[in-house]
Amino acid sequence: MTTPLRLGIAGLGTVGTGVLRIVQRRAALLERRSGRPVTISAVSARTRDKDRGVRLSDYAWEDDPVALARRDDVDLFVELMGGQDGPAKAAVETAIAHGKDVVTANKAMLAVHGQAMAEAAETAGVALRFEAAVAGGIPVVKALTEGLAGNEVQRVMGVMNGTCNYILTRMEHAGLSYDEVFEEANALGYLEADPQLDVGGIDAGHKLALLAAIAFGTQVSFGDVELEGIGAISITDIEQARDLGFRIKLLGVAQMTGRGLEQRMSPCLVPAASPLGTLENATNMVVLEGDAAGQIVLQGAGAGEGPTASAVMSDILDIARGLRLSTFGQPAHSLVKPVAAQTATPAAFYLRMALQDKPGALAKVATVLGEAGISIDRMRQTRHVESTAPVLIVTHKTTRAALDTALAGLPATGVVEGAPVAIRIEEV
Amino acid sequence: MTTPLRLGIAGLGTVGTGVLRIVQRRAALLERRSGRPVTISAVSARTRDKDRGVRLSDYAWEDDPVALARRDDVDLFVELMGGQDGPAKAAVETAIAHGKDVVTANKAMLAVHGQAMAEAAETAGVALRFEAAVAGGIPVVKALTEGLAGNEVQRVMGVMNGTCNYILTRMEHAGLSYDEVFEEANALGYLEADPQLDVGGIDAGHKLALLAAIAFGTQVSFGDVELEGIGAISITDIEQARDLGFRIKLLGVAQMTGRGLEQRMSPCLVPAASPLGTLENATNMVVLEGDAAGQIVLQGAGAGEGPTASAVMSDILDIARGLRLSTFGQPAHSLVKPVAAQTATPAAFYLRMALQDKPGALAKVATVLGEAGISIDRMRQTRHVESTAPVLIVTHKTTRAALDTALAGLPATGVVEGAPVAIRIEEV
Repeated sequence: MTTPLRLGIAGLGTVGTGVLRIVQRRAALLERRSGRPVTISAVSARTRDKDRGVRLSDYAWEDDPVALARRDDVDLFVELMGGQDGPAKAAVETAIAHGKDVVTANKAMLAVHGQAMAEAAETAGVALRFEAAVAGGIPVVKALTEGLAGNEVQRVMGVMNGTCNYILTRMEHAGLSYDEVFEEANALGYLEADPQLDVGGIDAGHKLALLAAIAFGTQVSFGDVELEGIGAISITDIEQARDLGFRIKLLGVAQMTGRGLEQRMSPCLVPAASPLGTLENATNMVVLEGDAAGQIVLQGAGAGEGPTASAVMSDILDIARGLRLSTFGQPAHSLVKPVAAQTATPAAFYLRMALQDKPGALAKVATVLGEAGISIDRMRQTRHVESTAPVLIVTHKTTRAALDTALAGLPATGVVEGAPVAIRIEEV
Repeated sequence: MTTPLRLGIAGLGTVGTGVLRIVQRRAALLERRSGRPVTISAVSARTRDKDRGVRLSDYAWEDDPVALARRDDVDLFVELMGGQDGPAKAAVETAIAHGKDVVTANKAMLAVHGQAMAEAAETAGVALRFEAAVAGGIPVVKALTEGLAGNEVQRVMGVMNGTCNYILTRMEHAGLSYDEVFEEANALGYLEADPQLDVGGIDAGHKLALLAAIAFGTQVSFGDVELEGIGAISITDIEQARDLGFRIKLLGVAQMTGRGLEQRMSPCLVPAASPLGTLENATNMVVLEGDAAGQIVLQGAGAGEGPTASAVMSDILDIARGLRLSTFGQPAHSLVKPVAAQTATPAAFYLRMALQDKPGALAKVATVLGEAGISIDRMRQTRHVESTAPVLIVTHKTTRAALDTALAGLPATGVVEGAPVAIRIEEV
């Protein structure tokens, strides 16, 4: 094959310009690897007159990404605009309808419209690929879809929002509060325009939902992801967790259970010595567990021009090489609608509460836990701060329901000051 | 496509039976993912009458793997016998000549005959794939060939022999000598029939040579890998390195330099806090560095039935799905013969020597280093043991040539007892 693969690129932000730079600088390498030239026919972005530090003069310009998506000189439409609906969705749908292959980095769009788009792509006989949508430069979609294709996948876990991991590790190392580091991150431009996408776990939840669809052969169901952000994590808990040998991560977990598909994105304690526990700053990590392969850990940059463009190029090169695979690793019409698990897999929990300085206070708490069927693995009471004593408890494995029963019973003891903190400890 | 993909499997050791088990147990999953049934037509092994705990009665039996490789009812020949030459090579060549696709886990064969075989496969229009040959269950061949296809690869590093990493970490944790742990490992069946394949770095060197070919578009050149095993590593060096914040790993490094292709497999110090430094037991880790993706770290089981069979299945499923890629990621005839770098990239070194208890001894050593152009980053002299004092030196970056000059000059000082130990510190 020496027919060029002609790209149309919509969206010239960080990632889009990164893709342009690679196509321009590495033309010979790309052709050697794919057996054909990879060229760009046309581009589109919101503003034309902006210095992006990259040459655009060789390419046709389209103000409208939808017009770009249906151009005759475009074989592969690269969607890097972002946004769940709007122009991104319209352009991708147009590209598919016009028989173009599509590569996108748009996790929000696919987490919501992925099933419909995969079906449309299948009907049209085109590829729709999204390596760049999950964990930036880490080729995790490929590792899961192809590398573990012979495995029944047991669990997928990941720290997939670099900003949240930056905030949590920065709090720990600088001894700063969540609010202080949030402001820092904001000033550094690390946060999305709507910060809840990051700190609320939504962005990472989108990614988890996409991986779960591949792992379990289910239709993407972002709506079923149990979401909890990092806004309530205090420096105290980070420090106490560390003392107990854990670190707190915004951790995504997807697993197929007898109760249905469990998808959670929430702060969890993980052992400090585990791979997930060693993760610093904005680095991403995904852990794939297969019945044959065992535990595979992948680590790398989860965002940024180079890493994300590298992932986009991986999909583009696959298509240039003729490696054409279903969006979620099996025909879209064969993906089953998952039943969402209503309860999470039992786990140990970290509890922190302030006990009043009264005789028998600790015994009362232990009794409430015991009555809820929760046994205690470790308990630590530290020196009184004014009239209350901080108490840390690590429970044995229990259900969230039992934990909630215990938490509801604590006020009646009359010895617990304020609301206890409870954080899941994930077995990794 | 509903035509089955019909396998012929030669070699029914651990990996072969693992593949059989997956094909038997996961038939529905494999068909759902690949769009066609994956079946087994025939198998071959040295002994037929042996209980492998897996059903063979449905398959034709061939005593001769070469006969298996040319059977009409075999589409894909799976070579899991091992051995650089002999039956494995003959059977793979036969399969290719008869137009069969080939999947192999045979690193020794490919490290030596990979170029010729890739060319033969290309001429015959068949696939020749080897995910299982490198780092067991970690999909590193795929990550490098496809996931980083848009990158100019800068460096590939890896701990890719689980037995060596087991020996080194076991020495450290149990405080045992190399010889003691070697005997333990041997008794546990962890070592190859020829232990030099493991502890001499040969097996890991084969793997490095295969990754280098993909990374740099060069013909596999195992003969150019600078090989050094772990036999000379003492518990003293492991402990002293640890005190300095390092761990000793049998580390493979491949990089393209202005001086040519550098390929080394040798004991190195790496920072204890780096991903490579955290690696325990028989786990494998590969670090891929691309100009766009940055550093990607992959970790998992490097051997064993499940992990290796998982990698074999990854290649089989690729072929079942119609994902057909050149053996080394670009046409075999376009791979260039590499020029081997004659000298390694400069590095810092760890030096340990015993100094005689004489005035000015340390100054004499420092002078010899200085005259060789080597400056000292850190030096530590500990309490005298009998009449000598152990001295540890961490140099700044220097060439191996300068280091060798210094080492050659030390005896003349008359203060150094015995031969100094010098180990490279790799920047990871």
